[in-house]
Parts: sequence; C-alpha cells; structure tokens
Amino acid sequence: MDYKFSNKISSLQPSAIREILKATADPSIIPLAAGNPAPDAFPVDAVREIAKEILNETPIDALQYGVSEGYEPLRKKVSDWMKEREGIGEEFDSTLIVSGATQVMDLVTKVLCNEGDTVICEEPSFIGSLNCFRSYGCKLKGIPVEADGMNVDALEEALSTTENVRFIYTIPNFQNPSGATMSLEKRKRLYELAKKHNVIILEDNPYGDLRVSGEKLPTIKSMDKDGIVIYAGSFSKILSPGIRVAYAIGPSAVLAKMTVGKQASDVHTAMLNQMIVYKWLSEHNPEKHIEKIQEIYRNKLNLMCNCIDKELGDFLSYVKPEGGLFVWCRLPENVNMLEFVKKCVDKKVAVVPGNAFLVNDTDESHYIRLNFSTPSDEKIVLGVKALGEVAKSYQ
Amino acid sequence: MDYKFSNKISSLQPSAIREILKATADPSIIPLAAGNPAPDAFPVDAVREIAKEILNETPIDALQYGVSEGYEPLRKKVSDWMKEREGIGEEFDSTLIVSGATQVMDLVTKVLCNEGDTVICEEPSFIGSLNCFRSYGCKLKGIPVEADGMNVDALEEALSTTENVRFIYTIPNFQNPSGATMSLEKRKRLYELAKKHNVIILEDNPYGDLRVSGEKLPTIKSMDKDGIVIYAGSFSKILSPGIRVAYAIGPSAVLAKMTVGKQASDVHTAMLNQMIVYKWLSEHNPEKHIEKIQEIYRNKLNLMCNCIDKELGDFLSYVKPEGGLFVWCRLPENVNMLEFVKKCVDKKVAVVPGNAFLVNDTDESHYIRLNFSTPSDEKIVLGVKALGEVAKSYQ
Repeated sequence: MDYKFSNKISSLQPSAIREILKATADPSIIPLAAGNPAPDAFPVDAVREIAKEILNETPIDALQYGVSEGYEPLRKKVSDWMKEREGIGEEFDSTLIVSGATQVMDLVTKVLCNEGDTVICEEPSFIGSLNCFRSYGCKLKGIPVEADGMNVDALEEALSTTENVRFIYTIPNFQNPSGATMSLEKRKRLYELAKKHNVIILEDNPYGDLRVSGEKLPTIKSMDKDGIVIYAGSFSKILSPGIRVAYAIGPSAVLAKMTVGKQASDVHTAMLNQMIVYKWLSEHNPEKHIEKIQEIYRNKLNLMCNCIDKELGDFLSYVKPEGGLFVWCRLPENVNMLEFVKKCVDKKVAVVPGNAFLVNDTDESHYIRLNFSTPSDEKIVLGVKALGEVAKSYQ
Repeated sequence: MDYKFSNKISSLQPSAIREILKATADPSIIPLAAGNPAPDAFPVDAVREIAKEILNETPIDALQYGVSEGYEPLRKKVSDWMKEREGIGEEFDSTLIVSGATQVMDLVTKVLCNEGDTVICEEPSFIGSLNCFRSYGCKLKGIPVEADGMNVDALEEALSTTENVRFIYTIPNFQNPSGATMSLEKRKRLYELAKKHNVIILEDNPYGDLRVSGEKLPTIKSMDKDGIVIYAGSFSKILSPGIRVAYAIGPSAVLAKMTVGKQASDVHTAMLNQMIVYKWLSEHNPEKHIEKIQEIYRNKLNLMCNCIDKELGDFLSYVKPEGGLFVWCRLPENVNMLEFVKKCVDKKVAVVPGNAFLVNDTDESHYIRLNFSTPSDEKIVLGVKALGEVAKSYQ
C-alpha cells in the first residue's frame, strides 16, 4: 500500500536528540547529549514506600479509570503548592494534570492553533516543544535568546508584523538549550507586550527548581492578572521523568478546552502515578529533596565547567548557567560544527549539534549542547577530555 | 481576554458519558452509565507484588526517561503474545506502546488525516473515539451496525461515493455501544473493500478477551497480508484502565510516523506502568486471569438480562451480546428517550442516552446503553428495578 500521511506530520522528523541517544545506546559512548536526571536525583526510597502504601491501602483507586482533569487531591495539592512557592494562581485559573509537560504544549497548540497559525518561540529552543508545534502545522517565528533571555525588541517587532500569532512560547529559567535566564525587566516587558497584542504566553518551567546559583526570579505567571499566561510545570526533573506527571495552570476557559482535548487524546493521566506524586508532595518533604538535587547539579555543573576551562579554554566559549541541565558552548568561527560533532562520536562522546534547536534546523549553527546531569562525574571528566582531543585536531 | 480557539476544538464538547458520570459522582446514584471494569476484576495482589519487585530491583529504569516506541521487553512480549493468541503480526508490522487505546485513535488520526478528511465509522460507535476524530477536524461518515456488525453494503456505497476517506474505524467484537459482533463473512468483506479502495482499517479490540459465550472469531488484523490494518489493543479491560497502557500493531511505515507523533505529544508512556504490564504478562498467567474476568462478566451479564426480562420484558428490547460490558436497549417507539433518561436520573439511576453515540448527536435515538461491569450485583438488581418503575409510568 502507498501510505499517504497528513500534511502536518509528513515533514516531521524524529527528534535529533532522541535519535542520537538511540544511536548511542552503546554503553561505551559517553552521554553528553541526553537530558536525563542523574540517577541519584531520584527519591527511590520514598517512591518505593509510597507505591507500597497505595497498593496496600487504595489499590482499586490506583487501577480504576480517573477523570480527565486529574486526581482531585493532586490538583488541589499542586494548586496550593504553586500558590505558596511561586505566587501562581488567581480566581480565574484552574489546574490540569497531564502526562508529562510536553502534553501541555500539545494541548495548548491543539486548542489554540489552526494549521498555518504562528507560534513565537525563543531561538534556539527545546526541540521537543518545537516538534510539538510543528506536528499541528504551525509556523514558528524565532526570537533570538540573549544572555538575559529573549530579545524583547525583536519580540515587539515580530508581534507587530506577524499575522495569526496564537501564543509566545518561553522557557524563562535556564532555557534549553541556551541556559539563559530571563531578567525580571524582560519578564515584565514580555508580559506587557503579550497583553497589548492579545496573545497568550506559554511559560514552560521544567528547570525552575534546579537553580544552583543567583537569585530566584518571579515566574511570568505570577504577574498574570489578565488571564493570559498558561504555566507548564513538571515533576520530571524533581521527582521522576519516567512517571510522566506534569501540570498546567492557566485561565479556566482555556484549561476547560484543554481538558476536552485531553479526554479525546489519552482520557486521563495514569492514576497510580498521580497518587505517587500526591503522596510525595504531601508526606515526603519535596523542598528538602529539591535542595539535595540542587547540590548534586551544582557539583556536576562546576565539574563540567572546570573541565571545559582546563581542556578547551581557548576553544569553546560559554556563559555559565545559574541552573538547569545544560552548558551551551560556542565553537570557533572557523570550525564546522557538524564535523566537530561527528569527530566527537568517533571519540565515543555524544553531544547535540546546535542546529537541532533552530526554527529551520538546516540553518548553520556554531553551538553544541552539553549535558552534565546524565553522565557520572567520571564520565564528565573523560567526556570533556575527549572533546579536548577533538579540539586539538583543529590546531 | 477574549479567547479564540482552533476550529477543530471549538465545537468539541466534553464526552456526554463522562459528564453524566461526573454529575452522578453522588454515591447514591446507581451507575449503569459507566464502562469501568468491576473492582474484583483487577489482579490487585499481582500488581502489588510486581510493583514491589520493580521498585526493589530496577527502580532507576522505572523512574528514568524511556524511548517513544515503548519499553523494549514489553514491545517484544506484546508482539509475541498477539502472534500466538490472535495470529497478528507480519514482517511488515511493528508494535508501539501507548498511554491507553484512545491514544492509538489519536495518533492514527494525527498521521493520516488533514482537517476535512473523512473517517468512516460504525453508527452508533464509541463516543471517545468519535470525539478523538472530531478533535482533528475530521468529518464522520456513519455506517449502520446490524446484529452481525457493520452493514457492508452501506460501507461499499460510502467508499464509492465519499471523497478523502482516510480510514475505517471498527470495533468488531462486542461493539460499544451496540454489543454487536461482526460475522466472519463481514470481516472478510470489510477487508477486501478496504483493500480495493486503498483505505486503512483501524481495528479497535478493547473487549475481545471479554467473550462470555459463542465462538471466538479471527481478528481482521490476522487476515492482513497487505499492510492495511492497524490494530489497537489494550490492557484496560483485562488488567487495569488506570494504569494507561495499550498498544498499536500495524505497518511499520505508519507506526514510525505515529511514533514521531507520540514523541511530540507525550514523549513516551510511563515506564513503571509498562514494566508492570510486562511482568504481569510474563510471570502472572494472564490467560487464567482473563478466564476469571470472563466468569465475572458472564454472571453479571446474565443477571442484568434476567432482571431486564423480569422488570422490563415488554418495554425494552435488546440482543444479548456475547461479551463486552454493555447491553444496548431499544425503547418503545412512542417513548421519548431523553425524557426517559431524565426520569431514570430522578430515580437515582444513570444510563447513557443513545444519541451520544451518533455521528450527529442531535439526531433522534430510541436507545439507551446499560453497563453491567461497574455496578455490584445488588446495584444491578436495584437499578433495573428502578428502570422498571420508570417504564411503568408510560403504561
């Protein structure tokens, strides 16, 4: 049979990162391309205890169908936690539990965008979200990311000159891949621009709790008095990504449509998983666990930066991020980035080529993204040393 | 803010059934409207033991990211199990693990359909799937269901006269809501018609293992030598719906696009859940558990039918299904179905109005759907007795 695919999906390629990761499933490859949490960042003992309690005390609730909005005690808990921690949530807002934060991007795009509508995003930006927007036939309009976040002048220009902009996608904290954190001034200006142009902001904050230095900044959602911000939060980086539990907080009118969309796409998020997150938040001191994770990542980030400075100080340039999972490194002007990445794979180190994060991924990039959460400390040292050897081949 | 929604989502309503269920969360209401498995159909002890083993032995695998295709041992196990049980799976096929079978419908629609394309479905049909197709802006073309399945003459006519038909959606076993099982002859004719017209068949078989009488019939997928059938299987009815694990088996070219679609929508299905299903299939004799469930439902179906015959013999007519979860009952011509349903709610019994399953749910229906898996035996007796009292008000 000659299969004919929809327009929106036929041009979509598998995520370059996930393909690299599959190609490098070989355990001898040093994984600086991934974005997996460090294995010691998982609260294994707590999850073991919680799962046991749930399956002893309320097994039927964990195995039976649930409602599309999410497990009610978790919805309430998340709302309270975000109100307390981030000042998020007004009368007009509600909370939806989803199966990983990518599903927030999926549902927002589904309910807001027709094919051909435009999503404004930072450039570079998280390939998973860009592919999600593409999978609905959206056009992407990229706004350059600077050391203090999105170039808001370029944003203003884009909002004034682009038709059918449906929302602005931003990762304000330790942006993936650039590591940039948006300044408070830019957050305020972004909010005002979105309000003026009647455009929704989709604020994706998966790394917010992974701050390892500097001052915490208010979320854009915490400034929202007009019901124009949808906040995507996740338990993937602070509890477990494999458990697939995340949430959206946003204006009830939009969340109601997203709930109908979720009902039609996967009915509801797995109950056992929602109950595990609920008990973890309620009974296992998540703040203390988050501090532990920050300490793990602070050490790993410092280690990676020290190694880069030692092995590649004259070759790679980067701005040390205040958190997150990645270091975004610029190669010298005369080095072909894709060739460099291939040479790294030959040396058994996987890194992500920077073009993967561009709106048009055939554009030229001089960047590579290095991850410090997945590899062990030993592998960080070995991996960056190998990159240093590749760099020497250019001298 | 004046929210503007996408065309595909703005007309979509929450599932009537799920709304009825929410409205009737009141525990004093007898739930004949649901489709939940019976609580005693869950293998609670097995799941408790399995979850403990996984979180003791390989907790990191259960909590870390996985690949979009699904947990490799489960993919292999499902492929083998379906080959052995159903004769499903050719060289050209592959298997994708998803988060509940509705996600199969979601991904098939996403990769095959542009807005305005047509999906052919049985009428009446499962509202969750119809809403899924609607959520991508598809037109629905309904084919009447007879006691032995879809009217294949009407199907042939529709295939000849309808443009841009992308696939045919069918539930061949104990169809929801009609309970009808498609005859072998019709299965073969459906396959040949789809092949002739170069149209894919989406075979949804959530209830196949819930046969309580009659002879098992081959799946349509088992006849597929041309790569034109996508099979949707699920663990919701034989293990647990709350765990959200299901699968698609179909031609690799289509499954590859569905995998990219899944990556862009929820990345992957929760790992702990996939591992639970894998261990259950591998180590806990699923066939024996399925026999136990069949016995539970055989008794509940017989009880409900006996009660209907006793209390409403002259009022409701129905064809006793050979399996599944529902009895599809026709009201007398002179009774207004929606009024009858409201009177039932007044008597504290929830049933689903038949129009919910129509392509145009404002069309008239003389049917109601009764579920026998969710209520206890006592509630079945009380619920049908209450329906009998409502029926008396028409005499």
